[in-house]
Amino acid sequence: MDTGDPIAVTPEPPYYAVIFTSLLSPDTEGYGEAADRMFELVKGMPGYLGAEHARDGVGITVAYFRDEEAIAAWREHPEHAEVRARGRKQWYDAFELRIARVERAYGFRRSEVD
Amino acid sequence: MDTGDPIAVTPEPPYYAVIFTSLLSPDTEGYGEAADRMFELVKGMPGYLGAEHARDGVGITVAYFRDEEAIAAWREHPEHAEVRARGRKQWYDAFELRIARVERAYGFRRSEVD
Repeated sequence: MDTGDPIAVTPEPPYYAVIFTSLLSPDTEGYGEAADRMFELVKGMPGYLGAEHARDGVGITVAYFRDEEAIAAWREHPEHAEVRARGRKQWYDAFELRIARVERAYGFRRSEVD
Repeated sequence: MDTGDPIAVTPEPPYYAVIFTSLLSPDTEGYGEAADRMFELVKGMPGYLGAEHARDGVGITVAYFRDEEAIAAWREHPEHAEVRARGRKQWYDAFELRIARVERAYGFRRSEVD
């Protein structure tokens, strides 16, 4: 799924991170399409800053938002709510969702130091 | 690398998350061994709560700690400091490190609802 930049380009903290760690069930029919659609939708949400995703066995998605209001608005998006319900019913054996306030950040890019 | 449970079992918030997102350079010699050693070491640090890791292209490691003091102690571990320096020199083309305070968390396990 395409989250944009593999390492999200985010502003100076503070901002928020939604950390979603998951194990898929054997029944992933429709999962890839739904995930792509969710990234497409969330990109249009006010206050969305970017996201990162990797899966090998466990999947980790970290989505960044300007504030709690932006997270709440995304949570309430009807299509997102529908997909979350399908996730619990079909795609996930387990997940943990954590809402965290990013307080400090530090980046490194090799091109900057060569 | 073995982070223990694929989805970290963490206490009730608040606690802290260190979100480390990275792109590897072509020269990964020694990287796997060093990463394994870091997970082995961090497990012995007071206030360490668990970690999650996935890589496909981009790598995401989220390590959880009780408080900022626990993060600072891990940062100051001499072997960890040495490995970080080698990471910037050899293994990483880019990374972003974010320190975040987990404020809310919600989990789902299929076995609980069947």
